[in-house]
Amino acid sequence: MLKVLRVLSSSTAKFRSHICTRDALSMYAFTHITRFSTATQKFSVKGPSSHQVYASFDIFKGKAALSLTPVLPTFTKLESGSLVVDRRGSVMLKFTPAIGERKYDWEKRQMFALSATEVGALISLGPNDSCELFHDPSMKSSNAGQVRKSLSIKPHADGSGYFVSLTVVNNLLKTRESFSVPVTTAEFAVMKTACSFALPHIMGWDRLTNKMPAGGGGGGGQESKAVPQLLEEWDR
Amino acid sequence: MLKVLRVLSSSTAKFRSHICTRDALSMYAFTHITRFSTATQKFSVKGPSSHQVYASFDIFKGKAALSLTPVLPTFTKLESGSLVVDRRGSVMLKFTPAIGERKYDWEKRQMFALSATEVGALISLGPNDSCELFHDPSMKSSNAGQVRKSLSIKPHADGSGYFVSLTVVNNLLKTRESFSVPVTTAEFAVMKTACSFALPHIMGWDRLTNKMPAGGGGGGGQESKAVPQLLEEWDR
Amino acid sequence: MLKVLRVLSSSTAKFRSHICTRDALSMYAFTHITRFSTATQKFSVKGPSSHQVYASFDIFKGKAALSLTPVLPTFTKLESGSLVVDRRGSVMLKFTPAIGERKYDWEKRQMFALSATEVGALISLGPNDSCELFHDPSMKSSNAGQVRKSLSIKPHADGSGYFVSLTVVNNLLKTRESFSVPVTTAEFAVMKTACSFALPHIMGWDRLTNKMPAGGGGGGGQESKAVPQLLEEWDR
Amino acid sequence: MLKVLRVLSSSTAKFRSHICTRDALSMYAFTHITRFSTATQKFSVKGPSSHQVYASFDIFKGKAALSLTPVLPTFTKLESGSLVVDRRGSVMLKFTPAIGERKYDWEKRQMFALSATEVGALISLGPNDSCELFHDPSMKSSNAGQVRKSLSIKPHADGSGYFVSLTVVNNLLKTRESFSVPVTTAEFAVMKTACSFALPHIMGWDRLTNKMPAGGGGGGGQESKAVPQLLEEWDR
Repeated sequence: MLKVLRVLSSSTAKFRSHICTRDALSMYAFTHITRFSTATQKFSVKGPSSHQVYASFDIFKGKAALSLTPVLPTFTKLESGSLVVDRRGSVMLKFTPAIGERKYDWEKRQMFALSATEVGALISLGPNDSCELFHDPSMKSSNAGQVRKSLSIKPHADGSGYFVSLTVVNNLLKTRESFSVPVTTAEFAVMKTACSFALPHIMGWDRLTNKMPAGGGGGGGQESKAVPQLLEEWDR
Repeated sequence: MLKVLRVLSSSTAKFRSHICTRDALSMYAFTHITRFSTATQKFSVKGPSSHQVYASFDIFKGKAALSLTPVLPTFTKLESGSLVVDRRGSVMLKFTPAIGERKYDWEKRQMFALSATEVGALISLGPNDSCELFHDPSMKSSNAGQVRKSLSIKPHADGSGYFVSLTVVNNLLKTRESFSVPVTTAEFAVMKTACSFALPHIMGWDRLTNKMPAGGGGGGGQESKAVPQLLEEWDR
Repeated sequence: MLKVLRVLSSSTAKFRSHICTRDALSMYAFTHITRFSTATQKFSVKGPSSHQVYASFDIFKGKAALSLTPVLPTFTKLESGSLVVDRRGSVMLKFTPAIGERKYDWEKRQMFALSATEVGALISLGPNDSCELFHDPSMKSSNAGQVRKSLSIKPHADGSGYFVSLTVVNNLLKTRESFSVPVTTAEFAVMKTACSFALPHIMGWDRLTNKMPAGGGGGGGQESKAVPQLLEEWDR
Repeated sequence: MLKVLRVLSSSTAKFRSHICTRDALSMYAFTHITRFSTATQKFSVKGPSSHQVYASFDIFKGKAALSLTPVLPTFTKLESGSLVVDRRGSVMLKFTPAIGERKYDWEKRQMFALSATEVGALISLGPNDSCELFHDPSMKSSNAGQVRKSLSIKPHADGSGYFVSLTVVNNLLKTRESFSVPVTTAEFAVMKTACSFALPHIMGWDRLTNKMPAGGGGGGGQESKAVPQLLEEWDR
């Protein structure tokens, strides 16, 4: 009998018996997890709770689960009415250790937030490339240097995917945690495509689209005002 | 005399006389077919029927037709006002056997819904790669294992495209159905590009865009609330 | 003295003295040209003229100009309220012959509308690939076969771009017109990227995005209705 | 102790002590910088200042900083209600020299606005390709030829990224300024992805999306009007 789990079916038709069921996923989705969207935006107008959306991409494997969620930038509105990026967006990676068959210990999850440039590193990885990224979550505080996180993405020897691993060394707690999640080529293609989609959004560039007024409703017809930046590079 | 059918013109200028006309397509579009869009969303506000859109990508060939349609995820609204993905989206593949010149038997169509990861498998296929995917549509029911669907994508020997095939073995009905549709490089490029476009949508990540308030209308100015996920990964 | 024309600057810093100025472009933009957008949609609500947008991508060269514009599909609204694609979208190519330095004869322009699959052929062209496409604009009329259009895209021998050529043979008028536009790698990259962007739109798949209600405004909470297509492929 | 600056962390884990802090970035964001969005649109309805968004992608290095911002096209509304592109959009590059550790002299910044085709040159660069672009910002004025800007993008010998350099020679002021910013593979991937995203927007093609009415609200049902362009290429 062939069982293919709904949220986990692999493109290579190799299925593991120890991966998580949908129920575990639902629990995960409801109780923990990144919020994305306007909850993190200063000018959120409908209250923080009304805007949250839970839509992570989850890879459940035998020893750990890896979850990706986009986090939008926040903006501050200036007195002039202009918006300026306040906090940069990211793609949040979450690692959760397995504690039995199809069970994960959400209390022990660890996070690593990819900046725009680190997303660039991920989406430019060739099939034989690897990369390693380091974070100090206490940077700029008195605990700077006490916690060290390192994320590594290394290709499988046979080119069939990658190992995505996180190590968190905490000198304050004297702990060292490691997570490693094998990611298939198909799963990595989803990660790349989703991160490429998310990248302009976490940079705030999707404002290009959102800010364009509908053609029919525009005022139109008024004279163009000189735009300084264009005066300086007039030939464009 | 050269005849090029409107919906079916090939980029290689090889045209088949047995392919379907626009009329067949229209019939197909109106009578059968996947609905996508908010009809599948729990919080659809204008009634399920008012929101449906029929816009499949259809490949009509001599022995069968292959049709692709995106299916959006459904969301459940929590009491807090947050949305959580309830049912994952997919890209629905439909195979319909030909029963004569330019005629297809829509009653005998079979479906295969690609999950996000399976879409990842499709869009990461190189020109000489193949992949095979298995589904059990009765999984978790008492009929689990009785029906087996397998989808295979195999490259033509000369690199000019792929065979996309579906086999459905039904042990309950003692039936075995097979469909095979040759797909040109140009048609596969459409499939890849359309699936890459659809992927963030079926994952629910396009909410990133939809949820962003228009800059001019935002409240703005209020203090930022600490966002737990960022506190835990403060350096990003 | 180096002159770089604003709308025509090449990435290779080779500029031609016979290419068109911005003024010619403006004239072109105002007087001729494809409309895209809701003007071609049956359910256009604000009248056909209020919705038109002129935003072609233009390549002006010595002997002819090539212009690309997306054309959206049209939809028909069924009594149920559903929308079905009525006329497929396309990417319209327009060729206009030069009649002197920086002058083009817009009366003699010829058009070739790329279907989704033909767009797939264009965007999947490798640097050494070529393709040829044939259209009969009078197909299905009494003049079928009397006019033959062929579009060819052929790589330059040195890999620095393509020749994009259109030939229109009209047996009724006893005419034969040919246009050939050399396209640089940079210009072709724009064509590919813009066509990849346009593809889901001309297929009607961007409705995925447009139809999603804002999270905050959704009704939510009602029970999910069984969706037939998913019942048939329940495991997804 | 490992310090990773929030906005500047490199994917290769090589960090420089002389790069800019977030504070410098904020100052930069508030005081100078490109506005994108409807501020540059003639039919901006809410006043020019209310629509500005500051969301550049910044690469801070030891000798100079490079900043990218999309600039939308402007449209003019015709009496018919149609919109026509008035000024083409661009991706604005800004180079700012360093004047000490983590300090940049914003008064001495120089700009170079990439047209759609020049964006095409950037996004089609292979890992070993280079390109050079020339602008004359005084073109068509009495100072034509007096100022010459040249942008070059050259790969590192080891394939680990590019040097992006700008030289501005001003014969009027008898000055010559040069900027060179080493860009990692990860940073260049962000530039490519963001520029590919921006390209349809600076061309005005995103109007395709914005102009589509919501399905439920459309009028629908009225007869289709013949669309001239399609009559001429009827087979599409």
